This record gives sequence, structure tokens and C-alpha cells, in this order.
Amino acid sequence: MESGNACYAFLGPEGTFSHAAARALAADSGAALVGYATVTQAIDALRHGQVDGTVVPLENSVEGAVPATLDELAGNGSPLIIAAETFLPVVFDLLARPGTSLADVKTIATHPHAEAQVRRYLLTELPDATVAMVGSTAGGAKSVSEGEYDAAVAPTVAGELYALATLAHDIADNTGAVTRFVLLTRPAAPPKATGNDRTTLVTYLKEDHAGALLEILTEFGTRGVNLTRIESRPTKERIGQYCFSIDCEGHIDEARVGDAVAALHRICADVRYLGSYARRDGQQAPVVGGRTDSEFSEAASWLARIRASGVSG
Amino acid sequence: MESGNACYAFLGPEGTFSHAAARALAADSGAALVGYATVTQAIDALRHGQVDGTVVPLENSVEGAVPATLDELAGNGSPLIIAAETFLPVVFDLLARPGTSLADVKTIATHPHAEAQVRRYLLTELPDATVAMVGSTAGGAKSVSEGEYDAAVAPTVAGELYALATLAHDIADNTGAVTRFVLLTRPAAPPKATGNDRTTLVTYLKEDHAGALLEILTEFGTRGVNLTRIESRPTKERIGQYCFSIDCEGHIDEARVGDAVAALHRICADVRYLGSYARRDGQQAPVVGGRTDSEFSEAASWLARIRASGVSG
Amino acid sequence: MESGNACYAFLGPEGTFSHAAARALAADSGAALVGYATVTQAIDALRHGQVDGTVVPLENSVEGAVPATLDELAGNGSPLIIAAETFLPVVFDLLARPGTSLADVKTIATHPHAEAQVRRYLLTELPDATVAMVGSTAGGAKSVSEGEYDAAVAPTVAGELYALATLAHDIADNTGAVTRFVLLTRPAAPPKATGNDRTTLVTYLKEDHAGALLEILTEFGTRGVNLTRIESRPTKERIGQYCFSIDCEGHIDEARVGDAVAALHRICADVRYLGSYARRDGQQAPVVGGRTDSEFSEAASWLARIRASGVSG
Amino acid sequence: MESGNACYAFLGPEGTFSHAAARALAADSGAALVGYATVTQAIDALRHGQVDGTVVPLENSVEGAVPATLDELAGNGSPLIIAAETFLPVVFDLLARPGTSLADVKTIATHPHAEAQVRRYLLTELPDATVAMVGSTAGGAKSVSEGEYDAAVAPTVAGELYALATLAHDIADNTGAVTRFVLLTRPAAPPKATGNDRTTLVTYLKEDHAGALLEILTEFGTRGVNLTRIESRPTKERIGQYCFSIDCEGHIDEARVGDAVAALHRICADVRYLGSYARRDGQQAPVVGGRTDSEFSEAASWLARIRASGVSG
Repeated sequence: MESGNACYAFLGPEGTFSHAAARALAADSGAALVGYATVTQAIDALRHGQVDGTVVPLENSVEGAVPATLDELAGNGSPLIIAAETFLPVVFDLLARPGTSLADVKTIATHPHAEAQVRRYLLTELPDATVAMVGSTAGGAKSVSEGEYDAAVAPTVAGELYALATLAHDIADNTGAVTRFVLLTRPAAPPKATGNDRTTLVTYLKEDHAGALLEILTEFGTRGVNLTRIESRPTKERIGQYCFSIDCEGHIDEARVGDAVAALHRICADVRYLGSYARRDGQQAPVVGGRTDSEFSEAASWLARIRASGVSG
Repeated sequence: MESGNACYAFLGPEGTFSHAAARALAADSGAALVGYATVTQAIDALRHGQVDGTVVPLENSVEGAVPATLDELAGNGSPLIIAAETFLPVVFDLLARPGTSLADVKTIATHPHAEAQVRRYLLTELPDATVAMVGSTAGGAKSVSEGEYDAAVAPTVAGELYALATLAHDIADNTGAVTRFVLLTRPAAPPKATGNDRTTLVTYLKEDHAGALLEILTEFGTRGVNLTRIESRPTKERIGQYCFSIDCEGHIDEARVGDAVAALHRICADVRYLGSYARRDGQQAPVVGGRTDSEFSEAASWLARIRASGVSG
Repeated sequence: MESGNACYAFLGPEGTFSHAAARALAADSGAALVGYATVTQAIDALRHGQVDGTVVPLENSVEGAVPATLDELAGNGSPLIIAAETFLPVVFDLLARPGTSLADVKTIATHPHAEAQVRRYLLTELPDATVAMVGSTAGGAKSVSEGEYDAAVAPTVAGELYALATLAHDIADNTGAVTRFVLLTRPAAPPKATGNDRTTLVTYLKEDHAGALLEILTEFGTRGVNLTRIESRPTKERIGQYCFSIDCEGHIDEARVGDAVAALHRICADVRYLGSYARRDGQQAPVVGGRTDSEFSEAASWLARIRASGVSG
Repeated sequence: MESGNACYAFLGPEGTFSHAAARALAADSGAALVGYATVTQAIDALRHGQVDGTVVPLENSVEGAVPATLDELAGNGSPLIIAAETFLPVVFDLLARPGTSLADVKTIATHPHAEAQVRRYLLTELPDATVAMVGSTAGGAKSVSEGEYDAAVAPTVAGELYALATLAHDIADNTGAVTRFVLLTRPAAPPKATGNDRTTLVTYLKEDHAGALLEILTEFGTRGVNLTRIESRPTKERIGQYCFSIDCEGHIDEARVGDAVAALHRICADVRYLGSYARRDGQQAPVVGGRTDSEFSEAASWLARIRASGVSG
């Protein structure tokens, strides 16, 4: 994140949540931003060295498919890691050309993921309007500005970009939703631990035996490492075979996390490390007794002394 | 599922994977099928008693958002349960009007979820074509038949329905993918256990303490109940608060499953039961020793004898 | 324990710790006490119906072998259970005929178990005295009163019984030791739960597989049942085969204990119930959330409702 | 154990099981043997440097108190470790002067621990004989040879030593019993791992919280380390406080054992290492997948690579 010449890819066009997230994640480094037409193209640009990072949604996606992001990270392409994360509140407005009233709205343009978040609003307030799916919420706003549709469901910033009026603000069925975006980079040593970090992994089971997941969680639990997200995901190879996409508290450089991840490496078919980075959605609990770096280090010295002299006292 | 007069809702139009799944799930009962414009409308029709069941995608969705289905099931609407499941192979074709060659294809219509599955194919084979997002894959095929676009990415059945030619068959980037569809109904006693069943639950943590997930999995593990899917999902109320959406092997009427679910009820803030139903994607492993119904029943008699007489022999 | 006509066996003669324990355990029922020459004879008297109870040491034995007691309980004789327990402080005095000084002591009589508890004292204070092993500490005191030895190591009560003087009080190497005695009876429904009870079990492993003990402890742990004693013991049949002698908090009539014990019955080769009785060495911690009798009962009703109607809300 | 000048202490006199065990444990080094009157004196001789090793019984004791051995090892004296073990079958004979018949036996001399093992035999075969407790079984045999008693219950070797006749062979109530003896030494680096070793520990709980034992066993279990013995033992300080005396498979120099023991050191109040040594009572199971030394080593390299470069592939 060092250079003022850095450049990050995002899912364009401008005016989307992805764009807002990219701006937030570029704030520290002052990276330039380049929009791409699809997530795949944005990620390929990173893999091919055309950009230094790519901003994609990972959880509770609005503008792009989260499973697609996970699948890209866990897939067979050259490895990528997460270098940073940011959370954006999901706020959708109903936008129209100035002068349009709610009663005038017969056609609405939006992206399917946005549509999923405002379904009940539209069903209640505009039951007779036709909803057209378009490639991005910002694209929908642009179409409205060009007169193709009567209204768009899009982020506030898209209304500003295309000079639209706000017919209704924050119309999501579940208010308070947020989306988590991450900055992907090519593999590199992780940033320094901050004391409030997250580590992302994918673990593939050695065999689909009873209790395999319990074993994995026990390796975290005995070392006092909390999980903040877990999802079983089918592996591509065979139905009924699972891998687990996992976020845990802490940083790979911390002893308790490194030790747990190394244990998973021993007992799993494969463990894919996807980055350690500063956590942005809360403060981790204090590390429980017996799991701090200094306690791990002291225990290693103690063991070495026993092996050399037989004395444990 | 008894009556020939039953009626199931699905996400229309005809010619989509949802339609194919609805036909499969209606085969036993001979239920009539009614297409709805959105998943929300199809589910509301069930809640309001207009239909007897609703077919929705649950995993690895193609035609509709899976998180949306889970959120509907776990949300605050009147409760619904899963009564049956089916799996459909996800096969996308590149369809065009007869006489069109691959070189002629400049515009392609498809649904964003289908687009996500064929991205690499399109990037490689048709790098210069423009992709238009439409409301359904079947709708895209219809548009092609009407001359609006050059080609559509859609299921084979859509090609048959609109008399299109197949430019390329099975073009998904990951072949072998399947989608799991479920039949939702209003709550009812579960169908009889078949010996190869699945039970779906949502569990809400009492507090976000370290090891809460480990506790939940241990209740399953000690009773020999395997999980087939687990996803942490943020609760609507507060970020950083999680619930777990879980599928496990076995039927709520089986002692090991019922006992595990009752234990979760004791230690979790809430457990939402979402149905026990015949499993369609494989055969469960034999129940491990000490966890069969007859062993649970014998242990209960043994305990009653001790409590009455002090004799355990 | 009701009748004034009840009669309890103990390891005689009078003046031993076993006698003191028997008096304490007979206090409630006013049972008469009969001394027997060996633990085996005292237990046989109970099995043959000659007495209503037998008092034996179980932990930190002084007057008799604890493993012998455990082996009798777990062995092939007709089953017995523990009906009550008491704890006695282990206080040994150095006793002599009045007028004897420490410098006069050349020979000391005691029982080997008492000798084991005062070794360092004797080595330090009377390094040149000869120690003679006799059948009981009270017998040693009697011999001293009869002039056979110079001094005896015995409980205070033996000094009173044989009119001996106390050369030194409380000479055990580890002061503060206690011995736990139990009242054995023939099997019967347990006494009513008091809220501070203990349950004793022996569990035999189904196979000597890795993690078998972990499985057993997990059944207790998930139900919030604490162990207060555990010992692996070789089974008679085969070396390397183990059973576990276990004390846990709580009463077999409590749901969390009964449920745990029934689970052990399912997963172990055999579980021998050895009694639930009032605990006398401390107060158990409050039952943790989700494990009270009313929570078990409510969970069972909740499960029954789901099975009947599909409704979990 | 290398030198022909080595000298081991044992609990004398000659002709006891302890003597036989000492001879077995001295076979490799050709150490000289010295009998001591008490276990405490034999252990003190080691602590004071008068001998190089001390042979004591540890499990299923016949000639001496096992709890006393454990307490010496776990106590506050200067630390000692176990350097080797051996198992002796426990075979007791009824020995008398040549010419004595069973019907002539009115008095029997033996040690209380031997008496505990032949109680049922004596009760059945010699119900009217008087049993006198003496300081050792060999001492009892000597007294018989001197005419003081009619018969002795003692090991076969004692009969040979004192030229007694065997009235009955192998009269223990439970045939097939064995006693485990260990060679104690002052602390030293452990002998080389043989692939079939045992490690002995005492662990003190940080607090007496629910599940503390479960935590300890989980540290062994996740690393595939089997326990072969566990006993809760009251700590001297406070009743209701426990420590655990544990034997586990494997050698402290093996990664899985060392890693587990270091983890215990982190989470327990104290861990006392009591030696790694060749196991003599069976063959350990193969180390389970993911727990071999090479897998631990490879996982450490893998983790170092991630921390340096971010690459896990």
C-alpha cells in the first residue's frame, strides 16, 4: 500500500457501492482507481499485473456475487490474498428525474442484488410498476437520466452523479445492512499485526468423515481463536464434498493463530491462506489466558529445557 | 403432498431451472404449477394460502438468490418449512436463432446469475460480445427468438421452448454444478422418516462467546449426527452477531436428531426448525454405534430402572 | 436409613478411624455398629443380609485399602451402592504409657497405612526406633497399653480408649489430610436429591480407541456436570484395558445427570451405577444455564410440539 | 544407566517383588542393588546421591503403597524422574516348613497388601487361621522358617530363599494381576525415543472450573496422543482442589507429545514432567495421520513460508 502510483481495480461503473468501497480502501495509499466491466476482469487485471489491487465485495453483497468472490479466491487461478477490508452501509434510494412523482413511476431499473433488498418496499409502494434488471445500479441510474426508465433503485451517490431527484431515501427492507468489501492483492508478507486483525482461510477436508468440522473448530477453540464467519461450500470436484471458508480473529503472525493454522495444515487435505489484515467491524475480545504470544514463547523455552535436562520445575 | 388439486408456486417464467425443479417436485403429488414474477411473491402466495407449496432455490443458486431464501425462512414472516428437495444439474447452452454462427454473435442476453457461471467461457470465446442482463434466462431466450439479441445463455429447455439452435452446449466454467431446490409448505408434521433424510435448522447464539459454535457442533457430534451444510449469517439486529443456518443428516423423528435439536434449544437463544425431508443427493452413512433409535430407547428404560431400584446391572 | 433396628458393619476393632466414621454415618438412623476383622468380611455380611449397611474407606485411605473397596464395588459380587458419605480428618498421635518420654521410645507399633503417613516424622524424630507393623492402629495402642511396645501411632480416640498419654499430637507428614468413608447398602432407589449430591459410576470402554475417555467426559461436559474424581483402573480381564471410576456432581434423578449417564450407557461397553447421595465436602456450583431440570423438561415439550405440528416458534 | 558401577536402591529385604523388579531393571546396566527399610529411605538415598536410581512400585502395588510413590514424585522434595519401567506378574504362594499340611496351619504371616489380594482364598480355605500382619512378605517367610508362624503368603522366590515348601501356588483372588515398577533417577535428558514409549506427568489445574479436565484431554486428543492412565488426586493445599497424574503414549522428544505438554504448560497452573521411557506392557498404535514428527516439521516450514511471503500453495 506504499506507493502513490498504486492502482486498484473495481467493478465499474462509477457511482456504485463498489466504487465507494474502492475509494475508502484507496484512501491510505492514494491509489488510482480503474473500473472494470466484470468482477472476473477486475481480478484478472490483478493476476496479470495490470493493477496492484482489486476491490471486491465479500459478504452480504449488493453489487456483486459473494460466492463468485470466494470461488475466485479458492479456485485454481494464481493465488491472491486479502490485504484490507472495509464495511459500507447499504443505503438504497428510489431515484428519478427531477419533477417525477411516485405516482408517475411505471418502470424501475435496478440490479438484481439491489432488487432483492427492496422487494417488500416495491411490492407495497409500487405494486404495479415493472422492474427491469440491468447490469449495475449506477447503470440503472444513468438509464433513468437518459429517459429509458422512470426510476432507479441505486445508492445515493449514483443520484448525485446523474443529477437525479430522490423520491424515497433508504428504502431497503432491512435497514442497517452493511456490505463488506476487501482489497485483494498478489501474495505478500502480511501487514504488521495491529491487535485487532482478521485472518481468512479455506480448508479442504481430508475425508468427509463425521466430526471433521468439529476437529477443525477444536484446533481454533483450544488456542482461544474465535471465528467470525464460517461457510461450508461444495468443492467443485464432487457433490457432497465440502470445504470451509473461514474468517477468524487475529493475525497469522500471532502465535495462537499461526499454531492453529499449522495444525489445520496437518489434519486437512489442504489449507489456503487468504490473508491477515486489520479488522474494521469491531474490537476483538482480549486474548484468553495461556494463549498470548509471550505464553507460547515461554512454553517453547520450557519444553526445550525439559528435553535437554529433564527438569520441568 | 396428497391431493391432485394441490398447487405449487415457482419463480416464472416457464423454461427456467426453477420451472424444471417445480416439475420434479410436483411429480409425486401431481400438483399444478403457477409461475410468479418474484420469489417474494411466490412465498407470499404460500403464506396467504393461495398455493400449497412454493419451489425455491436454496444452494448454489442459478435462477434466484439463495441468501434471500434463507432470509425468508429465518425471518419474521409466518413460519414455513421445507417439505422436499431436489437437485438439478446446472447446464447452460449458448442459444441463437437457427442459422446464426458463433462469429455472428455481437450481443448476448442472460440473467446475472447465469452470467456469473459462464464468465470465463464468454471472455475466451466471445471477448468482443456485449452481455445484456435480463430478468431471467428464459426471458433472454425469448428476446433472442424475437430478434432483440443475437444469443442467450440459458438452460436447454429454454432453447426448446423458443425453437433456438444450440451454438454451444454446457458452457459453464465449472461443469458438474448442481442447484438444490426445495419445496416450502406451511408448518405440518414432517413426512415419515425414510432412513435417508435431512433436517434444516437455524440456531441463534445466546451470546457471542468464544466456543459457542463448538458447543453447537458438539451436541451434534456426540450424538453421531453429521452436518451437510453450515453457514454463519449475520443476524439483522446487530453486526457481529451471528446465527447459523444448518443442514444435518437424519430426521427430527429419529432419537439422535431430536435429542440433539432439543439440546440446542436448551443452550441457544433460539432454534428455528425448518423441516425434515427425504435427502436426494446421496446416502447417509450408517448410524454409528450407540446412536440408533433402539439404543436411545433401551438407555431410557435402563435409566428408569436405576432411578426406581438402584440396579444398573 | 430409617429404622432404629438397623445395623452397620465396620472394620474393627473399636478406636480406629473406621469406627469413628461408622458412628458419624449411623448418627441419623441410630443404627447399631458391628466390627468385622476384614473389609471383605464386613462387605460379605452386607451381601448376605446380616447387616443393613457397611462403612468402608474410599479415598485417601488410612485404615484400609481404597483400591480394594473400588474393586469390591466394581467386581462380580452381587451389586452394592453407596448410600452416604462422610469425611474424617486424619490426625495421628504418638501414644505411650503415662510416664514414657520420647527418649524412651525404642519400639513403635502401627498399621502400615498409618506408617506411610508419618514416615518423615519418625525418620526425623525417632530415627533409631524400630517400627512394628500390626493389624490396626487401635490394636497397636492396645499392645502398648499391655507393655508389648513402647509407643503407637494411632488416632486420638485410641489413646483415650486405652488410657495412653500423648507424646506428640498430629504428627502426619501432610497435615490437613482427610479420609472419605462411604456407607454401602444393597441396591435401592436413591435418597431424594438435596441440591448438593454426588453420583458414583464405573464405566467400561467399548474398545480402547483413541479418544474414548474424551467422549465420556464430553457427555458430562455438554450437560454441565462436573467430575470430582476420576481414576483409570485396569480391568481384570486384560492388561491395557481400562475402566474409569468416576464421581460426578449431582443426583441421578436430576435430568442433566440422568441424561449424561444414559448417554454413557449407549456408548460404553458397560456402566455400573454405584449410587447418588448427599455430598459432604463442599457445595456444588450453580447448575449452568440450559441444564436445569425445568429446561430439560421444557425442551422435551418443545420437541414433541415440533414432531406433532412442525412449529418450533 | 551405562556404568557397571551404578547402584540402585529398592525396598528390602531380598525375596520380595520389589527385589525381583530391581533385578529386572538393573539387568541392562548391571547396577548393584541395595535394600532399604522403607520407600522413603530408598528415595532419600537417591535424592542425596547415595545411589543412582531407586526402584519403586507405581501401579497395582503389592509390596508398597502406590499413592506414596506418586506423592513423592509430585511433592516438594527435589525433582525425580522415571527412567524405566517393568511389569511383574503378581503370584502369591502359601508357604510352610516342609512337612506342614494345610490342616496344620493355624497362624499365617503376611504383609497387608498381600493379604488384600488373597482375602477370599484365606476366607474359604483357612477360615479359622489367624492372619498376622508383618513388615514384608519375605519377612513373613523368614519368620515361618524360624518357627514363629505356621505359614506365610509370599512370592515364590521367598519360598526358595528360606527353603519353604509350597502348600498352594498362585492363590491370589484375581489371577493374572501384575505390578508396574519404575526406576527413578535424578533429572536428566530422557533416553532416546524407541517408537514405543510412555511419558508421565502431573498437571495442576489453574482453577477448578467446569471442563478443566476436558480441556486437558482435548490438548492430548487433538494431537493424537493416547492416555494410558489418569488419576485425579487431591492437592495437599485444599480439599476439592485436584491435580491429575497422567501417563500418555509417546516420548517428550516426539513433536506431538512435546507440543501437547507445552500446551498444558500454557493452560495449567503447573505441569510436572516425570519422565519419558520405553514402554513395557504393549505396543502403541501407529501415530494417526497429521501427527507424525515429519508432519509437524513440514507444517512449521509451511507456516514460516506464509508469514514471509503470503503464499500457502
